[in-house]
Amino acid sequence: MAVYTEVFDDDVSAFLADYDIGRLRVLKGIAEGVENSNYLLITDQAPYILTLYERRVDPADLPFFLGLLRHLAARGLPCPQPVPGRDGEPLRTLGGRPAALVTFLEGAWARRPEVSHCAQLGDALARLHLAGLDYPLRRANSLALAGWHGLFEAVREAADGVIPGLRALVETELAFLDAHWPAGLPAGVIHADLFPDNVFFLDGTLSGVIDFYFACNDFLAYDLAVCLNAWCFEGEREFNATKAHHMISRYQKHRPLSDAEFAALPLLARGAALRFLLTRLYDWLHTPPGALVRPKDPQEYVHKLRFHQAIGGAGAYGVTR
Amino acid sequence: MAVYTEVFDDDVSAFLADYDIGRLRVLKGIAEGVENSNYLLITDQAPYILTLYERRVDPADLPFFLGLLRHLAARGLPCPQPVPGRDGEPLRTLGGRPAALVTFLEGAWARRPEVSHCAQLGDALARLHLAGLDYPLRRANSLALAGWHGLFEAVREAADGVIPGLRALVETELAFLDAHWPAGLPAGVIHADLFPDNVFFLDGTLSGVIDFYFACNDFLAYDLAVCLNAWCFEGEREFNATKAHHMISRYQKHRPLSDAEFAALPLLARGAALRFLLTRLYDWLHTPPGALVRPKDPQEYVHKLRFHQAIGGAGAYGVTR
Repeated sequence: MAVYTEVFDDDVSAFLADYDIGRLRVLKGIAEGVENSNYLLITDQAPYILTLYERRVDPADLPFFLGLLRHLAARGLPCPQPVPGRDGEPLRTLGGRPAALVTFLEGAWARRPEVSHCAQLGDALARLHLAGLDYPLRRANSLALAGWHGLFEAVREAADGVIPGLRALVETELAFLDAHWPAGLPAGVIHADLFPDNVFFLDGTLSGVIDFYFACNDFLAYDLAVCLNAWCFEGEREFNATKAHHMISRYQKHRPLSDAEFAALPLLARGAALRFLLTRLYDWLHTPPGALVRPKDPQEYVHKLRFHQAIGGAGAYGVTR
Repeated sequence: MAVYTEVFDDDVSAFLADYDIGRLRVLKGIAEGVENSNYLLITDQAPYILTLYERRVDPADLPFFLGLLRHLAARGLPCPQPVPGRDGEPLRTLGGRPAALVTFLEGAWARRPEVSHCAQLGDALARLHLAGLDYPLRRANSLALAGWHGLFEAVREAADGVIPGLRALVETELAFLDAHWPAGLPAGVIHADLFPDNVFFLDGTLSGVIDFYFACNDFLAYDLAVCLNAWCFEGEREFNATKAHHMISRYQKHRPLSDAEFAALPLLARGAALRFLLTRLYDWLHTPPGALVRPKDPQEYVHKLRFHQAIGGAGAYGVTR
């Protein structure tokens, strides 16, 4: 729900003068994307998405993100394409912020994902992982295990005030993950935030993947674990193993999981649950009154973490070796 | 910045089945419109705006609003057109809320209104007032003098905590307006909320007027006073009389102000300033933490009210009799 930076007419006119994309017809703030300011910008030639990168995005990472979009699209993944200015450079400045135009993707995200959506998501995720294997730039995952410790330091004292018992839950979980986090799993470029609102469908068919601003290098199977949490629960607590089965099976049609990845899935899912639990908790505590973004309830991810803690193995995800 | 009600795919499909406008291609929440949830909805035939009416809108008023759009557009004012379903009815239900589709207007609102924008606004406002004269439905202005008293009752005790001295300022002003509010000025349908973000321009030319959900019957010159406050100040405190001159002059090309209206302008502008001061103060105090809408600072309208209290007459608006 995000328009943090309001852009001014003359700034937009000056910005568009550096492109060869026609005259401005429509400029509308979009209530999607939590980290940046997004506008629908339509010229007399085509529609675009204009993104102004806000403080949470490190400008040094922007070449990684924009280059990745080009790289993935060239390999057939339906994702937005950065539109370069006349000088060939897609990364520019608007309203004092780094800004970029990308192509507009048709489709709508699945507000209630069903099995067919989950299956297609598994398909697209594997294609994304394979397409990213030869991407030359690298970006560390700042929200991996070390980052979770850092986040927790910032919320430790306040955690129990949000959810009683949360501090002990997270302390125990972090210690467990420190001791058991896997090493040596197949790694590459992951999306790292592939929630339903980042995937578009058109007439029931996946038509686009957006919002790569958490993309980084990490274990590929961790990305699948993020998706299990984001797509396969219903009403926060109920895990739909049929959806997980179809997601993982379709993923494996393109890239079969190794035994080590399969065995590590529950652990990765615990880590993925903890990651979103901690960022939601942090945002819950740090969102000022009157902010434009409504913080999401961390409780949802407490339920998800507990689910993965309780299962006996990856068989609970509806798949077998 | 508003998407209060999230709509689900199957609900949207069922909703669209009642129309004859093609298949859904895009559904995006729009970060504009404070009172309702707005989506950009594009089918393979055309783009539309889908509005879900939220709790602040009385469903009994919706026929007034939707009928007004049809009435004004039939008289040449560029405003959104309600799109009827197959049964001819534009007012429907979606996600448990009253909902309507309207046509999509091209253009972008003027983030920094200049003289030419203000002049065209004066032109459009007069055309709106003339076009509304024969509109048969009526809606009382719930945010007129009596409504301001009601609002103030709800914020009186907390006012000084927001801005020291505000309680006394408002009490004195309300008493003054009670004693001096004009009677018998020309009345008709007014927009009542014609801020820059409700007026679109395309290549510098006014292309659309939107968001009629405060429209009501009241003094026509009061609408002009709302616009003086919303368009002619710079940086909250500085009144640009050149902008006001062009706005009022262009308005008078279509509908000359009577002597009584001219004389009443400063008083109407004080009332208009108090109206937005009070609603902003109310929202400032009643917006829950984590809400989607950032409440606007009431301080801006304290400055505007004081400006109109201090001037000697309507000559300060750059116009003479």
